[in-house]
Amino acid sequence: MQFASRLDAIETSAIRELFKLLGKPGIISFAGGFPDSAMFDVDGIRAATERALSQDPGAALQYGATEGYLPLREQLAAFMASKGVQDAAPEQLIVTTGSQQALDLIGKTMISPGDKVIVEGPTFLATIQCFRLYGADIVTAPIDGDGVQTDVLEQLIIEHRPKLIYLIPTFGNPSGATLSRERRLRVLELAAQYQTLVVEDDPYGDLYFNAAPPPSLLALSSQVPGSRDWLAHCGSLSKVLSPGLRVGWLMAPPALLANAVMCKQFSDAHTSTFAQAVAAQYLQAGRMPATLAHVRQVYAERAQTLCDALRAQLGDAVEFVQPQGGLFVWLRLTGAGGKEHNAHALAQRAIERGVAFVPGAPFFAQNPDPATLRLSFATADVEKIREGVARLAQALNAA
Amino acid sequence: MQFASRLDAIETSAIRELFKLLGKPGIISFAGGFPDSAMFDVDGIRAATERALSQDPGAALQYGATEGYLPLREQLAAFMASKGVQDAAPEQLIVTTGSQQALDLIGKTMISPGDKVIVEGPTFLATIQCFRLYGADIVTAPIDGDGVQTDVLEQLIIEHRPKLIYLIPTFGNPSGATLSRERRLRVLELAAQYQTLVVEDDPYGDLYFNAAPPPSLLALSSQVPGSRDWLAHCGSLSKVLSPGLRVGWLMAPPALLANAVMCKQFSDAHTSTFAQAVAAQYLQAGRMPATLAHVRQVYAERAQTLCDALRAQLGDAVEFVQPQGGLFVWLRLTGAGGKEHNAHALAQRAIERGVAFVPGAPFFAQNPDPATLRLSFATADVEKIREGVARLAQALNAA
Repeated sequence: MQFASRLDAIETSAIRELFKLLGKPGIISFAGGFPDSAMFDVDGIRAATERALSQDPGAALQYGATEGYLPLREQLAAFMASKGVQDAAPEQLIVTTGSQQALDLIGKTMISPGDKVIVEGPTFLATIQCFRLYGADIVTAPIDGDGVQTDVLEQLIIEHRPKLIYLIPTFGNPSGATLSRERRLRVLELAAQYQTLVVEDDPYGDLYFNAAPPPSLLALSSQVPGSRDWLAHCGSLSKVLSPGLRVGWLMAPPALLANAVMCKQFSDAHTSTFAQAVAAQYLQAGRMPATLAHVRQVYAERAQTLCDALRAQLGDAVEFVQPQGGLFVWLRLTGAGGKEHNAHALAQRAIERGVAFVPGAPFFAQNPDPATLRLSFATADVEKIREGVARLAQALNAA
Repeated sequence: MQFASRLDAIETSAIRELFKLLGKPGIISFAGGFPDSAMFDVDGIRAATERALSQDPGAALQYGATEGYLPLREQLAAFMASKGVQDAAPEQLIVTTGSQQALDLIGKTMISPGDKVIVEGPTFLATIQCFRLYGADIVTAPIDGDGVQTDVLEQLIIEHRPKLIYLIPTFGNPSGATLSRERRLRVLELAAQYQTLVVEDDPYGDLYFNAAPPPSLLALSSQVPGSRDWLAHCGSLSKVLSPGLRVGWLMAPPALLANAVMCKQFSDAHTSTFAQAVAAQYLQAGRMPATLAHVRQVYAERAQTLCDALRAQLGDAVEFVQPQGGLFVWLRLTGAGGKEHNAHALAQRAIERGVAFVPGAPFFAQNPDPATLRLSFATADVEKIREGVARLAQALNAA
């Protein structure tokens, strides 16, 4: 059977091979990118489900508008407004089947084969692959602890005239980095100046530990004339409420949104109205602030535990910037003291010692840094985190 | 903003314009393609939801495998086995976000720009658009009351060497036609002989009124050596259980399935685990047979009422084959007695008189027949059906 030529753009993922080993009993995993299911507000979701099925079961179980279930769009618009987005209205966003689908619809709507797309190096692996399936030629912009380097970004825009720029400005995956307020304003200026679409992927922005991060690009766009016309924003309920609902959203300029709706019609017709009705009831019940507060507190403690343990047990063999939110610590093996500085090799030995993580190289669309790796602190409790780092230290010392 | 070139393949739908008028109060609609929400088994779904959230809430609300939630895949495999599919195993199917996504994944996985795809004329509009977004060049094979004409189909295969052939063999949308058993076997022979993928879309096969239709192509493939290697089957819970769950599935040869999973990973990661867990619990509780029996009985009565009224009130101004299942009657305006024979013109006048239907022309990828139209008998009760046909007769007589 001859498959479509677009599949040639996708490499078999190195991560996939490692994930196969994760089923081993007793493994402590820093590898996942998902929230801790023990923190799901099951009672709140159960109550929301009961209301959805008693108030209007016909609507919750029937086909729905491709744009999304209106009561949910209203709740999501209010949620965005509460985070500083001006003129956030239901008709400016569509509901997507997780924010992954928002990315897919952006790819389908925007990217012609051969179009250049700029992403951060490193960035979310599934975005790279998603855009490559639509023929994107991916260009990488370097980041540091303050996110993408905007001076280099401008040079890349001039050189490549990209179709779009994809950023995770807040608590990036895998980097954990957060784009500074100054750079955010600069990105918005670049979008307006070069009339280039910027896609802001923001699944982690609500997961801050102490001070709130800078406002989203979308919220700041009111300060940079013309920038909102070149800005798409992807949101998600997956990291706080529940990934299993598969509810995300896309805010974008009207013409882009209309084309994304047309594409979505032929992608999955609409997102589960049942899941949307449950999410709408949940948000309407006002449970989100308490859930968020709980999640932030737990993740903050785990992040602190992980970073403390890394410093204590791995010392100068690693370097990292302590994240202020999100789910991830991005580590670089320094090779100090002659220790292992190849993350893929370390991952193999770590699995043998009962701890798992994801090597960083696959997160780079270009010029992978083999010394990097990603640790998630979301799903292991503090005891397990300490034990996991101890095992990691053993693996590193065994090199 | 410059959008992707693939969007140029899509025309603004004539149907979309008509749907805008459907909000008019008092309209009797034969236009929809959806089941009657009054027949949803809300109690059964509520009970299934409670079990899903009490037995393993973590699994129901967490990220899940791209292939689908295993307990649901097991239930769906058993469901397919009960319909005569040999060796139906969970690993031979993946769960999709409605069967629309199964079509999208087939397009993404199989179709390179310029590839020929054969569909029935007429066929499901969203399939044509879905495949065109992947660059398909659509070729139409003619149908009659016994489904696609296999002799012409073979000539088209020889002439066009298509990447795939898309059929709705049972109670087709919009035609209502059912492929005869003889022709089914012939289609399977053609698939094996010409090594051409046949996609069987089967959302309506369970909705038969009296005698069961011939077995699906998938079930019959065991009788035609080599044919199963060239057969993909799309199933759906939307027409019987609930469209709002957005649960469909794709059964296909292993290599195609593996590529579809890879594409799905970047399309929406996975279908809502929450919806999947509810569907799995529902099927496991054994409620499907009673629900199916109820739905069949109600739709059979409505179909009979519609066909009787059409014969009585429209007489020789229309011709149609009475469907033995599904949701649709496919009508052709004969123009007898000088009456209107353009369905689009009739649709406009019908809306003014308070009855809506969908003209048939947009369902043809090539050579549209402007005299055709589609009537759904699913959502109006028998009283409304009679009144709707009376209004249709008025609209026709006003020509």
